[in-house]
Amino acid sequence: MISRRLLHIKTVPKLYATNIDSLNFSQSKSSPSVIPTIPTHELLTKLNLISHPHSGLINWLPIGLTIINKINAIIRSRMNEVNFEELQLSLLSHKSLWEQTNRLNNNQEIFQLKDEPFLLSPTAEEEITNYVKQNIKSYKNLPILYYQINNKYRNEKRPRSGLLRTKEFLMKDGYSFDINEKEAMNTYQNVFGAYINIFNDLKLPYVKAEADSGDIGGSLSHEWHYLHQSGEDLLFECDHCHSISNIEKTLSFPNEEKDVKDVSVRYFITKDGSTLVCAYYPSDRVLQPNFIKVEIDDIDVSSKLTQKEILSQFETNEQNEDSLMNKKIIRIMDSRLTSRSNFPDFPLSFINRSAITTFTDIPIVEAQADEICGKCEEGKLSSSKAIEIGHTFYLGDKYSKSLDCTIETPDLPDRQNLIMGCYGIGISRIVASIAEINRDSNGLIWPAIIAPWNVTIISVNGSTDPYNGLFEKLNDENVDYKVDNRAKIGLGKKINQSNLLGIPLIIILGKNYPIVEIEIRGKRYDPDGELAWKKLYESHKDEYQWKVEYDEGQNDVKHYVHKDGIISVINALLKDM
Amino acid sequence: MISRRLLHIKTVPKLYATNIDSLNFSQSKSSPSVIPTIPTHELLTKLNLISHPHSGLINWLPIGLTIINKINAIIRSRMNEVNFEELQLSLLSHKSLWEQTNRLNNNQEIFQLKDEPFLLSPTAEEEITNYVKQNIKSYKNLPILYYQINNKYRNEKRPRSGLLRTKEFLMKDGYSFDINEKEAMNTYQNVFGAYINIFNDLKLPYVKAEADSGDIGGSLSHEWHYLHQSGEDLLFECDHCHSISNIEKTLSFPNEEKDVKDVSVRYFITKDGSTLVCAYYPSDRVLQPNFIKVEIDDIDVSSKLTQKEILSQFETNEQNEDSLMNKKIIRIMDSRLTSRSNFPDFPLSFINRSAITTFTDIPIVEAQADEICGKCEEGKLSSSKAIEIGHTFYLGDKYSKSLDCTIETPDLPDRQNLIMGCYGIGISRIVASIAEINRDSNGLIWPAIIAPWNVTIISVNGSTDPYNGLFEKLNDENVDYKVDNRAKIGLGKKINQSNLLGIPLIIILGKNYPIVEIEIRGKRYDPDGELAWKKLYESHKDEYQWKVEYDEGQNDVKHYVHKDGIISVINALLKDM
Repeated sequence: MISRRLLHIKTVPKLYATNIDSLNFSQSKSSPSVIPTIPTHELLTKLNLISHPHSGLINWLPIGLTIINKINAIIRSRMNEVNFEELQLSLLSHKSLWEQTNRLNNNQEIFQLKDEPFLLSPTAEEEITNYVKQNIKSYKNLPILYYQINNKYRNEKRPRSGLLRTKEFLMKDGYSFDINEKEAMNTYQNVFGAYINIFNDLKLPYVKAEADSGDIGGSLSHEWHYLHQSGEDLLFECDHCHSISNIEKTLSFPNEEKDVKDVSVRYFITKDGSTLVCAYYPSDRVLQPNFIKVEIDDIDVSSKLTQKEILSQFETNEQNEDSLMNKKIIRIMDSRLTSRSNFPDFPLSFINRSAITTFTDIPIVEAQADEICGKCEEGKLSSSKAIEIGHTFYLGDKYSKSLDCTIETPDLPDRQNLIMGCYGIGISRIVASIAEINRDSNGLIWPAIIAPWNVTIISVNGSTDPYNGLFEKLNDENVDYKVDNRAKIGLGKKINQSNLLGIPLIIILGKNYPIVEIEIRGKRYDPDGELAWKKLYESHKDEYQWKVEYDEGQNDVKHYVHKDGIISVINALLKDM
Repeated sequence: MISRRLLHIKTVPKLYATNIDSLNFSQSKSSPSVIPTIPTHELLTKLNLISHPHSGLINWLPIGLTIINKINAIIRSRMNEVNFEELQLSLLSHKSLWEQTNRLNNNQEIFQLKDEPFLLSPTAEEEITNYVKQNIKSYKNLPILYYQINNKYRNEKRPRSGLLRTKEFLMKDGYSFDINEKEAMNTYQNVFGAYINIFNDLKLPYVKAEADSGDIGGSLSHEWHYLHQSGEDLLFECDHCHSISNIEKTLSFPNEEKDVKDVSVRYFITKDGSTLVCAYYPSDRVLQPNFIKVEIDDIDVSSKLTQKEILSQFETNEQNEDSLMNKKIIRIMDSRLTSRSNFPDFPLSFINRSAITTFTDIPIVEAQADEICGKCEEGKLSSSKAIEIGHTFYLGDKYSKSLDCTIETPDLPDRQNLIMGCYGIGISRIVASIAEINRDSNGLIWPAIIAPWNVTIISVNGSTDPYNGLFEKLNDENVDYKVDNRAKIGLGKKINQSNLLGIPLIIILGKNYPIVEIEIRGKRYDPDGELAWKKLYESHKDEYQWKVEYDEGQNDVKHYVHKDGIISVINALLKDM
């Protein structure tokens, strides 16, 4: 096979020719000045990273696909480190499994095939559990740890043009099967560590939001987010205990006694029908029924009964006088309410007053910034919009139970349900988020590890022949570069287009050779406070005949280096990008 | 990120644990002796390369996915060499495009979504043409050369359990767009060369079968096959001109005058309705209507009229006496017929005898072995069953015309239809074919370039610690190995299982270390007649303390080599596998 190094030079002109020449704004009629004002998803389309054949569908074009492949490589490396194995399940799943787990019912978001019993998998819990059930031979094979990277489908009724809310999206989904809860927790922690590594590799700051695990208990579910004003999620962070959680899960107390005047009430019934729960909360706030569950775990938050129907079950009349004797009422008052608030009238003429219990000072509405953290009850909450890019979830036996995925163990008489976890990363969402978060008035900016390529090389006079020695060195050291040797395109335009695409570095080869010019485009991430190139500069400044040009904010924008130092300097510059 | 070399050793025990321990036949109740008798697709399933969640659907399990990824790497490398760029189109395609190209009509093989205007793409001519149409800015961007590797869908009503005929299959599909026929031919030749490289890389002998390009003319369509008795295609090769073609396209003449007694006839009508074609052929042979097209290109081979309906249009009666005057009859006689054959009566009382033309000695039935090649009219045909694994096709403007994919050119007044080609490779079919063709009584045999891994390493006493120096060297040289260090599994079983999976080499580390034993499993491909290791053996036999053990057929089965020569010996052995 041809060596990769030859490919570098050979194929580049072609790659550019179809991917940059055909950009809309490379035509004279539209200028780069539109860049700052267009939405990011349009920028990605204009730059030929993606196209939308129809609303909610995505074609990944060559440059976009390169970014995807680089993200996938990070994910694979990190998942393999924690002993997960990659597989590729069929994208079609048989409806019968989804009927067993009760996930198909009225689910309008699942694409089904016409006249066939298949659906397009939105996730693969059913299929993977069924596969493991059919193939596991012994508890000794546990844990079983699989992941896949492929398209998922969801019939999103309001697709947003872009990559955040689409009918088809690229996702890494992992699944774990353990013999018991303890081992499953251990697996969860391993994946947790892998996720930290993955998102650290991607350089951008991220947050882990804790989430209740509902019926399972413990705090073994996390959402992974990039904070950004364009996000659809709202997170709260406590300035004391530093816990971060999604608005759906953030308990909060009022930070000062405010006079809440108008009070609303919503009625719930427990699953056994024995108890009426009257939830009182400020009329100007949003009730979060799941918070009531923290106090009354039997409450039916998804009941389809109307308020009237719920109340009627507790209304005294001739038929139910006896049965009412066994019924109870719980009044639950949001923490923000005081005795001065205007409570609505109690709607029932309930006889047994002793059956009424009242809970006060319970946080049951969605948090707001500046309120007190419901977790530590000390710190103040701040809010941020966020884009969810991953989740890790301890599933317990939810799927293994309904699909009968069990195993014999040496210690216990009965077959045991396998204990599962599932772990998602939204790969197309990561591309969209990073594009959105990092873009500036000159276009996109990719972290080096996922940039379409790391270095654009431009020869001022158009010919690369005088620099063959340099290219040999770049090839030997596997520098990820492309040469822009398109004819009849000026230097300025080539630089602009490389910057627009978010390539971290540009090397310009000109009459000062062997001194080479390096222009900086990549964003700096230096958590330790010291850029790697500065250290190298101290020790090799003279040897490399290295000069640096700074902008007004004292940021380095251009480096001039002797070709013999080029590899070390490039690597040092890329290290923090 | 962790270096690859650490991963090698770290993850192997786990990989084996889930992939080999759980094999059916690794349980004592079923023995490897069943291997020779089970169908290949069952072997692939038993070995956990794939599983079938439902008939016609495929899960690629970790080892199978590794093979797929290695095939994909070859395809990518070779397609990139001829300047094709990889992209990834949506798997969903909008029905409207397929209505424009008339490919959806009554096509029961296309999966459609329920209540949605989308279908699951079986191939992507429509979508890629539509994309190019919307995005191409100038003829200067031509040629546009794209390929993708992803799942394709076809509602196969009779899926065979296995990988050859499935509802979901992995395919590389490439598409080219050129400014004119000459350039398109050039692109076709480039892809043709890439395919030769791809199939040479895969080592197994293959054939290119020529195919008519129908309306387009020229011989610019090829099918790429592996010859094997399990195949569903039948190919003929001429021993004189060496042309190879599919039965559907092989013209042939009888090799000696045989007395054909019974003659059948089938009636056709030309598209303009003017001519009745009466095709006479031996009753014991299969008529191939496309062969009649070679002589009478206007013939309607897909007419839905019955024989009776066709004849009725030429039957004299009072209504049509006049119009019949303009109608003609052509009688076409297959080459195998003679004047001694029993022709059926002519069914019409047609008045105008002068309007009847008779062609004799035209080959219109499917060829049989030992007949004379219809191309050179010299050689004798031999037949072979074959599995189609790829096709290359010059499309002309078939799709660009119906989807209006056109471009302005400097030389011509009107916008020109782009001239297209399409190029497929059935990746899952390659896996199935190679498994089928190469298997023997000990299991599978993979060419080294796509083997799940190249070398299985087994330490006789179970510990790898004493051999750290050796592993360092293997890592430095990127040898693609896995260690089988499962506890409580005997050496013999480990060897059997590695062989069963088709791993080319096994290294056994034992008490003779630093002398290392290498067992041969891989199949030899030495087109030049000299195995690479033999050459190395001549020059390094003494230096490496190299001894070879042969079987009764004088094939080398074991090599004993000093650890310092291990890398060179492994590389030489793998070179021909």
